[in-house]
Amino acid sequence: MSGRVDARYSPAGRALPNRLADELTGFLDGQVELLSEMSADLGSLADAARAAVLDGGKRLRPTFAYWGWRTAQPEGADGEDDLVRAAASLELLQACALVHDDVMDGSDTRRGRPAAHVRFAAEHARAGWPGSPTGFGTAAAILLGDLLLSWAGQLFTTGIQSLPAARAAGAERQFDLMRTEVVAGQFLDVLAQTRGQFDPDEALRVIRYKTSKYTIVRPLLLGAAAAGASAGMQAELARYGDLLGEAFQLRDDLLGVFGDPAETGKPAGDDLREGKRTLLVALAMSGGDTGVRRLLQECVGNPELSEAEVEELRSALGPAARQVEHRITARAADAVGCLSDAVGPEAQRALVELADAAAHRRF
Amino acid sequence: MSGRVDARYSPAGRALPNRLADELTGFLDGQVELLSEMSADLGSLADAARAAVLDGGKRLRPTFAYWGWRTAQPEGADGEDDLVRAAASLELLQACALVHDDVMDGSDTRRGRPAAHVRFAAEHARAGWPGSPTGFGTAAAILLGDLLLSWAGQLFTTGIQSLPAARAAGAERQFDLMRTEVVAGQFLDVLAQTRGQFDPDEALRVIRYKTSKYTIVRPLLLGAAAAGASAGMQAELARYGDLLGEAFQLRDDLLGVFGDPAETGKPAGDDLREGKRTLLVALAMSGGDTGVRRLLQECVGNPELSEAEVEELRSALGPAARQVEHRITARAADAVGCLSDAVGPEAQRALVELADAAAHRRF
Repeated sequence: MSGRVDARYSPAGRALPNRLADELTGFLDGQVELLSEMSADLGSLADAARAAVLDGGKRLRPTFAYWGWRTAQPEGADGEDDLVRAAASLELLQACALVHDDVMDGSDTRRGRPAAHVRFAAEHARAGWPGSPTGFGTAAAILLGDLLLSWAGQLFTTGIQSLPAARAAGAERQFDLMRTEVVAGQFLDVLAQTRGQFDPDEALRVIRYKTSKYTIVRPLLLGAAAAGASAGMQAELARYGDLLGEAFQLRDDLLGVFGDPAETGKPAGDDLREGKRTLLVALAMSGGDTGVRRLLQECVGNPELSEAEVEELRSALGPAARQVEHRITARAADAVGCLSDAVGPEAQRALVELADAAAHRRF
Repeated sequence: MSGRVDARYSPAGRALPNRLADELTGFLDGQVELLSEMSADLGSLADAARAAVLDGGKRLRPTFAYWGWRTAQPEGADGEDDLVRAAASLELLQACALVHDDVMDGSDTRRGRPAAHVRFAAEHARAGWPGSPTGFGTAAAILLGDLLLSWAGQLFTTGIQSLPAARAAGAERQFDLMRTEVVAGQFLDVLAQTRGQFDPDEALRVIRYKTSKYTIVRPLLLGAAAAGASAGMQAELARYGDLLGEAFQLRDDLLGVFGDPAETGKPAGDDLREGKRTLLVALAMSGGDTGVRRLLQECVGNPELSEAEVEELRSALGPAARQVEHRITARAADAVGCLSDAVGPEAQRALVELADAAAHRRF
């Protein structure tokens, strides 16, 4: 159950992935025991929770939280274990976001395995229960996401409780904003997809909340606030995060269309079938000729797209993809350029490595 | 937007509903402002959040939390305002549970108004957006529930932060258990409904987590722990809550079949169409003759039931309903019998009134 962790996401602190895994495993063991005391029938819920949290994932948000902390605290400082625990809670939040996202998008695959709702539907079908496997899968996955979101709050609170009050309150503030902004970002994303518009500005606004704030800025500031970093340092990290977040999401968008399914764990062309309103598609729409625009309008969001149609869309998106590649490189470089020496040499090296990994990853 | 509040749920502390409403309104105003700063497109999410929290509701969980507190603290004691704030957060939790529950059950009506997912679907249809209004409604309601669940954690933490550390930790523990148990109870409920079994023991186990713990025991103990109540007092309140919780849920089950839609805010016979595996139905199944058993097996869980069929089912459920009525009266009396003088005269009077209201309400 240890799953795939890209070593590039844990620069310098090579032990961090193991520490996070230990926190998550320990916490989940306790919660699973609680569930099993309530009823043996909660076993499949417990198994699904473990799978959602422990099967793979890049641990990106906890890693940024850790390095946010390290901008103001030396390695092994008092409270570091607590911070790692609070940081681990961000993986529970992310697991909730993915489980609910897959229900909303109707995505059947996550990290190369069946999505949670598909897993529950399969359990229903195997058991031969009456009624609809799909309905059961959806209901169970909604509840699983709720459980993971509740547990995120619980583990976070446990993590920060020993910190000095002002620093704990600062971290709490970032955690609260993170939880609100990710839902807001998802809502804007669903709205953009539903309205069927292709608008570069709208695509960038969704990125701002759904990715930049949620994936990078808030985790970094959460760690920095917990460490007692200065307001100046927090502003610097926020600028880095806003820029790098855009690069990260744009890479995600390119991987969703051009990525290798063996590496991304998602079927090829899935984002096109779902009709994601990405900057990539919006740029192709505004820059393409009539033929390209008609093709995009007809095909993006069609769940029945054939492999050949996906291939045709890829060709049509080629020029926009080159624009997006250029933008990724520029944003990642600008992000790194925001880091002053005040960050300290180790954190600086880590944040530069993380920027490179986020901008140039293959999954 | 103040909605219907049954005065019987606020014995003694007549001002409590207003204090809770002020806390919720103030908190929501702040969060809605945050959303509106992000994007004007979040207006419908903000409106739906307000409606889910402020339109009606009995405020039962915060009321039990308040009276749990009062078992160990006099009226107006230091920290009471903070406790009321923490207690108000339980309404956000409950709003999440209802919004997600309505999605899972496919219930179109809540408190006499359109359920959240129906409200979002109607917005979609009104705007004439492409794609499926139902799909949009479901996605938006899942996100709304997530937002409310996150906000519950945020408001709770704000409420308990000024309490002495040990008392805050005790309240936090109850809040954490509450969040886990309600999801576990809902999962068991969905499972029982899916398997289509009619088992009185299973029905009682679902009640234990979904209602007794979530609605009464945890809120009471949360307040008691925050107030620094003794372990003995907490055990006494837990026994009261377990018994009263059963009475409360059994009344809910009767209202779901025999209640007046004008008072319950739910269409008549809705629970029968949804196929809820209640103790009422399980008792009718185990005690009825072959004709009754066949009728129940065929009709309970059929979403297309006619009014005449609902009426026929009501007749068939009559004998079981009398058993359930008897059980409600007995459990409520046993609950009240658990309260010793250590609870204090005011809290005792309130808890007795609450037991009466919960057991004999009409909505």
